[in-house]
Amino acid sequence: MPRLVDHDARRRELIRAALRITARSGLEAATMREIAAEAGVANGALAHYFRDKDELLMAAYQHIFDETNRRAATAIGEAHGLTALRRLCREIMPMDDERVDEARVAVSFWGRAAHNPEMSALHEAAMAEWRSRMLTWLRQNRDSGESTLAEPDERIADKLLAAMMGLQVNVLMAPASTTPDRQVEMLESILGGPLPVQDDIRTGSAATSDNR
Amino acid sequence: MPRLVDHDARRRELIRAALRITARSGLEAATMREIAAEAGVANGALAHYFRDKDELLMAAYQHIFDETNRRAATAIGEAHGLTALRRLCREIMPMDDERVDEARVAVSFWGRAAHNPEMSALHEAAMAEWRSRMLTWLRQNRDSGESTLAEPDERIADKLLAAMMGLQVNVLMAPASTTPDRQVEMLESILGGPLPVQDDIRTGSAATSDNR
Repeated sequence: MPRLVDHDARRRELIRAALRITARSGLEAATMREIAAEAGVANGALAHYFRDKDELLMAAYQHIFDETNRRAATAIGEAHGLTALRRLCREIMPMDDERVDEARVAVSFWGRAAHNPEMSALHEAAMAEWRSRMLTWLRQNRDSGESTLAEPDERIADKLLAAMMGLQVNVLMAPASTTPDRQVEMLESILGGPLPVQDDIRTGSAATSDNR
Repeated sequence: MPRLVDHDARRRELIRAALRITARSGLEAATMREIAAEAGVANGALAHYFRDKDELLMAAYQHIFDETNRRAATAIGEAHGLTALRRLCREIMPMDDERVDEARVAVSFWGRAAHNPEMSALHEAAMAEWRSRMLTWLRQNRDSGESTLAEPDERIADKLLAAMMGLQVNVLMAPASTTPDRQVEMLESILGGPLPVQDDIRTGSAATSDNR
C-alpha cells in the first residue's frame, strides 16, 4: 500500500510539535532531533520540510501570528471600529494559558531574532499588518463622528503595539502585575474610554466568541 | 612580582566582554570559551568568577539594569515628580546606539529567561524596583496639587513598564516605526501632558544631563 501523505497537514503537525517543545522546555531544547521525535517522524522526514531550525522557528512564529488572527477574525465577526480593534488586541494579549504559551514561544523567538535579520523581518511584517488593521479601525471610529480619542491614530497604534509586546515579556517574568484584569484595564486606558457593556472584561476571547 | 588582581574590576571586565559578544553576535555565540577569549583570560579564570553561562548572563542583565539606573541618577539629579519619572523612562527607552545594544542583550536574555525561573526572577525584581520608583514620583506629582493625570498611579506604571519593554523588542525588529521621536511622543502621551520646556525631546539623556 503506498503511503499517502497530506503534506500541509504533516507540515502543520511538525510546527505544532516544535511549538509544544518550545513552550514546554525552551528554544534550546527544541532541537531538530527532539522535534522529529515529538512528531513521531524520522529526522530525514523533518529535514524534508524544514531546512534547519531557524526555518522551522520562523514557520512556528508565523503559525502563532496566523492563529491569533484566526481567533481574532472569529471574535470580530462583523464588528468594526473600536470594537474590532479591542477584539484583536484581546487575542494578542496573553490572558489565558494558550496565549501565555504563545508568549513563551514569541519571547524565545525574539531572543534568537534579535541577531537574525530574516527572523526580525517576520516580526516587522507582523507588526506592519497589525498596525495597518488598527489604523483602519481607528479611522472607522473617527469617521463615525463619535470618537473620543484625542490623539493621532499612529500614536495610538504605537502605544498599542509597544504595550502588547511588552505584555508578552511581563506576563512570563512579572506575572503578578500582569494579570488579565490589568491587561484589559491597560487596553481600555490606551483607548481612552470605558469598556463597552457587551464585552466581558475578564475572560477575553472566550466571552467575545460566545457572545456573538 | 606577585600578580595583584582587582577581583571586582576583573569581574566587571568579564561581564562587559559577555555583553559585547552578545550585543554583536547573539547569545549563542557568547559561549564561556568566547567570552574568556574576548576578555583575554583563561577559561579556568572565567569559571572562577562565574559557575556557568546562566550565572554570567544574570550578572550581565543586572549590569545593564544598574547602568541604566546609574545614567538615570545622573540625569535626574535633584529632580522629582514627573520630571524624574520622564528621565528614568528616557534612560530605559532604546534611543541611541548604546541603549539599542542593551535592548539586544535584554531581548536575548528574555528568550532564555522565558524558561528559567531564576533568570525570570531577576527581571521581576527589576520591574518591581522601577515600579516602586515610578509610584513614588507619581505620588509626588499628585501631592503637588498640579497633576493633570486622571488615572490611578498603578495603571500609569503598568502602561509605562509594558511600553518600555515592548520598545526593546520593536526597536530591534521594527525599527522604522520605533524611532527616538516616536518613543518620546509615546512617553508623553502616556504621561498625558505636553513636554516640559527644559527637556529636549530629541536627544534624551545627553541633553538632560547637559542641561543640569
